[in-house]
Amino acid sequence: MLLLHLSDVDEASWAGALRTALGDYPVVRRGDDFDPAEVRYIFVWKPQPHAFDGLTGLKAILSLGAGVDALLRHPALPDAPIVRFVDTDLSQRMSDYVVAHVTMHHRLYSRFRAYQNARRWHQFYPPAASETTVGIMGMGVLGQDAVSRLKPLGFDLRSWSRTPKAIDGVRGFAGADSFDTFLAGTDILVNLLPLTPETTGILNSDTFSKLRRDGLDGGPVIINAARGGHQREADIGKALTDGTLGAASLDVFEIEPLPDASPLWPLENCYITPHVAAISDEKSGVRYFSQIIKNHQAGEPLINVVDRTRGY
Amino acid sequence: MLLLHLSDVDEASWAGALRTALGDYPVVRRGDDFDPAEVRYIFVWKPQPHAFDGLTGLKAILSLGAGVDALLRHPALPDAPIVRFVDTDLSQRMSDYVVAHVTMHHRLYSRFRAYQNARRWHQFYPPAASETTVGIMGMGVLGQDAVSRLKPLGFDLRSWSRTPKAIDGVRGFAGADSFDTFLAGTDILVNLLPLTPETTGILNSDTFSKLRRDGLDGGPVIINAARGGHQREADIGKALTDGTLGAASLDVFEIEPLPDASPLWPLENCYITPHVAAISDEKSGVRYFSQIIKNHQAGEPLINVVDRTRGY
Repeated sequence: MLLLHLSDVDEASWAGALRTALGDYPVVRRGDDFDPAEVRYIFVWKPQPHAFDGLTGLKAILSLGAGVDALLRHPALPDAPIVRFVDTDLSQRMSDYVVAHVTMHHRLYSRFRAYQNARRWHQFYPPAASETTVGIMGMGVLGQDAVSRLKPLGFDLRSWSRTPKAIDGVRGFAGADSFDTFLAGTDILVNLLPLTPETTGILNSDTFSKLRRDGLDGGPVIINAARGGHQREADIGKALTDGTLGAASLDVFEIEPLPDASPLWPLENCYITPHVAAISDEKSGVRYFSQIIKNHQAGEPLINVVDRTRGY
Repeated sequence: MLLLHLSDVDEASWAGALRTALGDYPVVRRGDDFDPAEVRYIFVWKPQPHAFDGLTGLKAILSLGAGVDALLRHPALPDAPIVRFVDTDLSQRMSDYVVAHVTMHHRLYSRFRAYQNARRWHQFYPPAASETTVGIMGMGVLGQDAVSRLKPLGFDLRSWSRTPKAIDGVRGFAGADSFDTFLAGTDILVNLLPLTPETTGILNSDTFSKLRRDGLDGGPVIINAARGGHQREADIGKALTDGTLGAASLDVFEIEPLPDASPLWPLENCYITPHVAAISDEKSGVRYFSQIIKNHQAGEPLINVVDRTRGY
């Protein structure tokens, strides 16, 4: 039996689609009449405190989100394997966001909008893509997909990750010791890291001050499409105001929705989107998780299982 | 002998670099002491009315611009072959511009900026790149380069050109008869056509009204990186105001610099850049034209010669 426990999304719609995909296999929702001990799989998004109560026969927790940092902090999380959503459609959408914001900043969007507002015709030439270095933090599925999209555009690429990753055409840096060297050559910093104790608050004043200053006109740029917990918004506001950063594209925030009083809202060089960089699409989610359940029922091992000590 | 006649750029710098590249071959500038009949090549950008006077031994006209529409209208243009600048660096920069603006509009930049200005947190999901059709007008060197950059991003691509062009992964349309069909499936229209009598004013109300209306949220988008003569700015202003177009990115204008009184300046959904999409870079220009001259002196045929009846 599969139990759905999805907040903030259309759970009824997911239930209908999963029932169709799973055929005879029973799919239930909170409030339905069922025995918790019969539940083998629970499909969660933002589970409530008592979400896992009585699930004594649980074989796996299926997470709708690709990031499981919030789930891992659940006070009553059972010891069952957690399968996270790894999905080409989600990677595509995340890369869509990353490419749009990298290219916008590379083409000095903020400068030209300021010129336009002043009705000023002044020819200032952006660098070629090959003259601009994009530094990507995080070389998992999302980071590698971003690389595959940015490389054909001609950008100079470098990556930073926990463990070394050899990716063709990307200069790889790994571990804390190489972080400063990685930053020193980066014009546009893209964060796609998982949120762990080590990466919490990594987008801070100290990091910003180490980015390359003689590259992009206006100053270096950060793009955060991962988690609000990665960033110190007070530091970002200060850096965008004092010129340490030329611009920032933020899709995630320390508190979401971003509070009305946030000083980030009115900053012209801060590009705010309301956590829409990548969504878990229902169609691909149903395809992915129904296949996970079918394969597991047929005796195959689970895939994309979270390493709890690593945190992702 | 090579004569330089370059307006609005640093001619002295070009002359120095070309002298270095060409070694013994003489390079002169207007005002130098030389016999016009000795000039075999003239390298021009925005030539003045008397630019070609007395050049009785001319073998070729070298054009710094990739577009030669203005040059072809010169009242005293000699009958020598015109070599235009075809340059990978220029193509790269043009594609940088095209990709930045295609992806910005695809990710609904205008909508999210409006939300931000209102401090409004509202999750609205852009389509995946594969759900958005980019229609490129012009499949020459620039159009094909743009295709090579947009394809790995996952966009659905179609092209329209004077003669049929078979390009892998692009649905090709050719000629006036197929123009409406091409437009009907296009969400983001990119103009990279040469400016000819047939293409003058092609970006007009009639064209805009035929673009796909049930695709991109906010309405279809146009991007003009070719020539101001391709567009009817009165029509663009109207379409951006009445919702026929969701947004426009314009790098070129009917009159440049764009007059202070233009009604386009204050439009939030009009993205104005001052003819900086692609520049003719000195380094690659010197490499290209010095090689053209050396090869031609060695008896090889000229390359990238303009077809005057076609207009490009």
